[in-house]
Amino acid sequence: MGEVYQKGELAKKASYQLLNKSTDEKNDALLLISNQLLEDKDLIMAANKVDLEKGKENGLTSSILDRIMLDEKRMKDMASALKELVKLKDPVGVVVEEIEKDNGLKILKKTVPIGVMGMIYEARPNVTIDAASLALKTGNSIVLRGSSSAKESNIALVHSIHKALEKSALPKEAVQLIEDTSRETAKELFHLKEFLDVLIPRGGKGLIETVVREATVPVIETGAGNCHLYIDETANIDMAKKISLNGKTQRPSVCNALETILIEEKWFKQNGLSLLQALDNRGVEIYGDQTVCAAYETAIEATEDDWYTEYSALKISIKVVKGVMDAINHINKYGTKHSEAIITENKENATTFLAGVDAAAVYHNASTRFTDGFEFGYGAEIGISTQKLHARGPMGLNALTSVKYFIYGDGQVRN
Amino acid sequence: MGEVYQKGELAKKASYQLLNKSTDEKNDALLLISNQLLEDKDLIMAANKVDLEKGKENGLTSSILDRIMLDEKRMKDMASALKELVKLKDPVGVVVEEIEKDNGLKILKKTVPIGVMGMIYEARPNVTIDAASLALKTGNSIVLRGSSSAKESNIALVHSIHKALEKSALPKEAVQLIEDTSRETAKELFHLKEFLDVLIPRGGKGLIETVVREATVPVIETGAGNCHLYIDETANIDMAKKISLNGKTQRPSVCNALETILIEEKWFKQNGLSLLQALDNRGVEIYGDQTVCAAYETAIEATEDDWYTEYSALKISIKVVKGVMDAINHINKYGTKHSEAIITENKENATTFLAGVDAAAVYHNASTRFTDGFEFGYGAEIGISTQKLHARGPMGLNALTSVKYFIYGDGQVRN
Repeated sequence: MGEVYQKGELAKKASYQLLNKSTDEKNDALLLISNQLLEDKDLIMAANKVDLEKGKENGLTSSILDRIMLDEKRMKDMASALKELVKLKDPVGVVVEEIEKDNGLKILKKTVPIGVMGMIYEARPNVTIDAASLALKTGNSIVLRGSSSAKESNIALVHSIHKALEKSALPKEAVQLIEDTSRETAKELFHLKEFLDVLIPRGGKGLIETVVREATVPVIETGAGNCHLYIDETANIDMAKKISLNGKTQRPSVCNALETILIEEKWFKQNGLSLLQALDNRGVEIYGDQTVCAAYETAIEATEDDWYTEYSALKISIKVVKGVMDAINHINKYGTKHSEAIITENKENATTFLAGVDAAAVYHNASTRFTDGFEFGYGAEIGISTQKLHARGPMGLNALTSVKYFIYGDGQVRN
Repeated sequence: MGEVYQKGELAKKASYQLLNKSTDEKNDALLLISNQLLEDKDLIMAANKVDLEKGKENGLTSSILDRIMLDEKRMKDMASALKELVKLKDPVGVVVEEIEKDNGLKILKKTVPIGVMGMIYEARPNVTIDAASLALKTGNSIVLRGSSSAKESNIALVHSIHKALEKSALPKEAVQLIEDTSRETAKELFHLKEFLDVLIPRGGKGLIETVVREATVPVIETGAGNCHLYIDETANIDMAKKISLNGKTQRPSVCNALETILIEEKWFKQNGLSLLQALDNRGVEIYGDQTVCAAYETAIEATEDDWYTEYSALKISIKVVKGVMDAINHINKYGTKHSEAIITENKENATTFLAGVDAAAVYHNASTRFTDGFEFGYGAEIGISTQKLHARGPMGLNALTSVKYFIYGDGQVRN
C-alpha cells in the first residue's frame, strides 16, 4: 500500500480517538500549535525559502510566488488565527432535536464530527494550518494534499503541528500530509472512500472541476463565482455606481467580485453612460452587448463565452435587459450560484429577483462582496459552498459536522 | 438531444416556477393527485396487469411480481398517503438564522427547495407516487427513472399526476418520467449536472453502488444496512433474546434488521446456548465464529465475507468478542454506518459504544428496527441516509430542502 492509503488509514483510526476528546482538549491542542509555529518560525521560513527559490527557477509568476511566501507577519497571522479559533463555540455535541416516544424511547439527534476530511489545495501554505486547525476544532482528522510548489513549507508546517500534538491530548495521526505531490496521489484521494468522509478542493476552477468530475468521495464544491449585479429601472444612480465599483474594483481576484452587470433598458438610456464612464475611469475593461457597444466607443463586443467568464481581473461584461425576469433568466443560465444582487427602489421587483435567482446569497441594495464567513459573523470560513447539499454559502464550523441519532430504551422492540 | 436531456431541461424550468408557489397551492396539487389516482385506478391497474404479465413471461420471481403489483388496496393506500402528506408542515421558507450587522445589513438564512431531484429506482411503482409527492410538497421538480419491469404502471401513474397538475397552480412539467428504461438513460442521469441538483437511488445494493461510483451529480446514498447488536457482559438475558429476535425475525428483508450479533465472552459462556437455541427455534440459520461453532453443532462456520453481508433473510452471523472496544472495532470495520445497538446494564460501556460506533443511529437497550422516518415521527421518509453529508439517518421533508441567504441593505459596500 502506498502513502495515500497508509496515511488515510491512520487518519481514520485517529478520527475514532477524537470522538472522545473534550472541547478543552481540542482548544489546548490549538494553542500548542499556535505556540509551536512561533517557536519554529525560522525553520519554517527556511523551508519556505527553498520552495520560493525552486519556484523562481521554474519560472512561477510573482503573484504565485507571493502566495507561497511566508514572512514574519504571515507566521504571526497564522498563530493569531489559531488563538481566535479557540474562542469560537465548539459545534460538536449540540442537541439539535429531542424526541420522546409513547413507548418510552428517547431519541437525541446530536452534532458529531464528520470523521476524516480530505483537502486538496494549491499554492498557499497557510491553507495547511487553516484547514488542519478547523478540522481539529471540529473533532475531525484531515488528510492534506498541497501543491508541489509549497512542498517544503507544508512539510515544515505539519512537522510543527505534529510536535505540538505530541504534547496534547489529541492523536498526532489526526493530521496527515501527503508528501508525494504527483497527480497519482490526488487521484488516489478522489477514490479513498474507505477512509475519507468528505473531500474539499480549494483552488482554481480547473482543480475544482476535476475533483467534482472524478471523485467518488463526497465533495463540497467551493469557490467559483460568476457574480452579477442587476440594475433595475428605479435604481438610485449613486448607489448603482458605488456598488458596481465596489463589486468590481475593491478586490477583483476574489470569488464574490462582480463579473457581469445587467442593466434595465430605460435606466441604461438615462444613466448608462455615466456608469460606464465611472468604471472606465477606474481602469475597468468593458465587454458589452450591442446596445452597450453602440453607446460607448471603447467597449469591446462580448462573446457568448464572456457571459460565462469569471474574469477575476479588472474586466466586466455588461448587458442591457428588458427587466427583472430577463435578468433572472440570464443569471440562472450563466451564473455559478454564488452571489447575485439587485439595485431597485421597487420592492416587488426585489422580491421577485431574490426568490427567482438560484444562488447561495442574494442581495437587495448591497454589494456581493459581503459573501464571506467572517463578514457573516461565523468567525471562521472553510470556503463558500456553491452546491446545494449539506452546506450552501459561507461555511462556518458547523459545515464540518454531521449528525447522529442516540436512542435510549429499556428493552423496546418494534411491533 | 434525447429524452433525458429534454425532460431534465423542462424539470429545471418548472423548478424556477415552483419557487413562487405557496404552501396552499402545493397542498391543493397533492389533493388533486390523490383524487385523480382513485378516479383513474382502473386504467392504472390495467396498465399494471400488462407489466405483471410481461414479468411472468420473463420469469420474474413471485416476490418481485408482488412488489410490482397494484391492487385496490395499494391504490387506496397511495391516495391516503398523499392526504397525510398534506397535513405535514411545509419545510420551505423557514428562517433558520437571522443576522444584523453593525453596518445595517440584515441577513436571513432561509430554507428553499433543492431544485431538481433525480430518482432512480427498482420494481415498486408506488415509489413513483411517493417520490413525486414528496418532491412537490417541498417545492422541487423531479425526474423519475423507474425500472422496465414497472414501465406501463409508471407511465399510467405519471399520466394521472399530469392530469391532476393541469388542474392545479403547479406546472405539470415539474414531474418527468423517463420512459426509455435502457441502461443508457440511467447513465445520462448520472451526469446531468446541468439540470439535476441531487440524485437519489432507491433499490438494491448493486444499484446504489453503481450510482455512487458513477454519478457526478451529488448523490444521497440510502439503504444498505449491515446492522449489529452487541450483547455486553451485564446484558439482561430476556432483553437480549427479545431484541435479537425482533431485530432478526420481525421483518428480515428491511435495512434496519439485524445481520450480526457480537457477544461478550463471559456472557456467551453463561447465556450463549440459550440465545442460539431461541434463534434456531425461529428458523434462523446461524453463521458463527469458532467459539460459536464449537458450542453449537448446527452453526455453520462464518467466512470473512459473512461479516460484511447484509443477508436480508433468516440468517445471522454471530461472533464472540472480548468486550465493548472489540465490538466497536468490528462494527466500524464491517458495518455500513446504519443502525447499531448495545445491550448492557453498564452505563459507561453504553456511553463508550454509542460515542465510538460510527453509524447514523445508535441504540442502548432497544431494537435497531426503530430506525425509520415514521417511527421517529417525521410523518414521511425519503429513505435512510448512510452518508454523513447533508442528511444522515431517516430523512424527513427537511432533507429535500437547501438554504439560501437573503441580504437586505440600503447601499452598503465592503471596505
